[in-house]
Amino acid sequence: MSRARTDIEAVEEANTALYEAVERGDLETLGGLWLDAEVSVVHPGWPVLTGRGEVMRSYALIMANTEYIQFFLTNVEISVIGDTAVVSCTENILSGGQAEEDGDLGPLVGGLVVATNVFRRVEDGSWKLWSHHGSPVLVEGEDDDGSEELGA
Amino acid sequence: MSRARTDIEAVEEANTALYEAVERGDLETLGGLWLDAEVSVVHPGWPVLTGRGEVMRSYALIMANTEYIQFFLTNVEISVIGDTAVVSCTENILSGGQAEEDGDLGPLVGGLVVATNVFRRVEDGSWKLWSHHGSPVLVEGEDDDGSEELGA
Repeated sequence: MSRARTDIEAVEEANTALYEAVERGDLETLGGLWLDAEVSVVHPGWPVLTGRGEVMRSYALIMANTEYIQFFLTNVEISVIGDTAVVSCTENILSGGQAEEDGDLGPLVGGLVVATNVFRRVEDGSWKLWSHHGSPVLVEGEDDDGSEELGA
Repeated sequence: MSRARTDIEAVEEANTALYEAVERGDLETLGGLWLDAEVSVVHPGWPVLTGRGEVMRSYALIMANTEYIQFFLTNVEISVIGDTAVVSCTENILSGGQAEEDGDLGPLVGGLVVATNVFRRVEDGSWKLWSHHGSPVLVEGEDDDGSEELGA
């Protein structure tokens, strides 16, 4: 927790911590990364879940049904205004869920996901998650076409 | 612009204005609803687009390829902390796009979309969009199962 960190670095660290907690299946650490306020989450293909109870329950469900999961984050873009940060990133996911007959978690595992994560700086200076929204990339990305108009 | 509005009411109005501008195909009004800062957008099934240029270009493309579109917003949840607001909502969309042979806009039109919209209060007191992330609902919503654990 270096004091020399910029806001951008601190937010990137908080963003990484989110994915590492999911990778480790560490629900307790994950809970500490979220605000106590009205939080919300959208997992890829899921409806919106609001409130800490629903958010944590959804992660517990995901962890319980995921044998392993690993995130390779690319295109991490961080915008900080005051005590709020909006992070967009691409989650390149390697994962394997338990064989589920009900198929509930089918759309969640594997493939390419884009995420928007909103963080809020709290009193102790740390950045806590306010909202996570992940969604599957269904259409061909224009960046795959080498189009020049897609800037950074 | 009543002075008696609460923050929640003002944010809801800004959120509604976003969808009305898209319904009308009014790109100029839409542009005025977004921050001048580093904005980002994820349309359903699309990769992340960052920066005002890319965001506006994406809406111009959507408008050019959409004959009509109408949003019925449900489950609008608004969380305000300081000068930032996170809005989650369900977009029940009635739309018709132009027949496209390349199919670029296929995943965009129709169906059920969940959105997370981040707003920032600017100097004149109005709320401007910082980020919009919309994604298709692919799995059966738990709220359709009548499960009691899904709170408001």
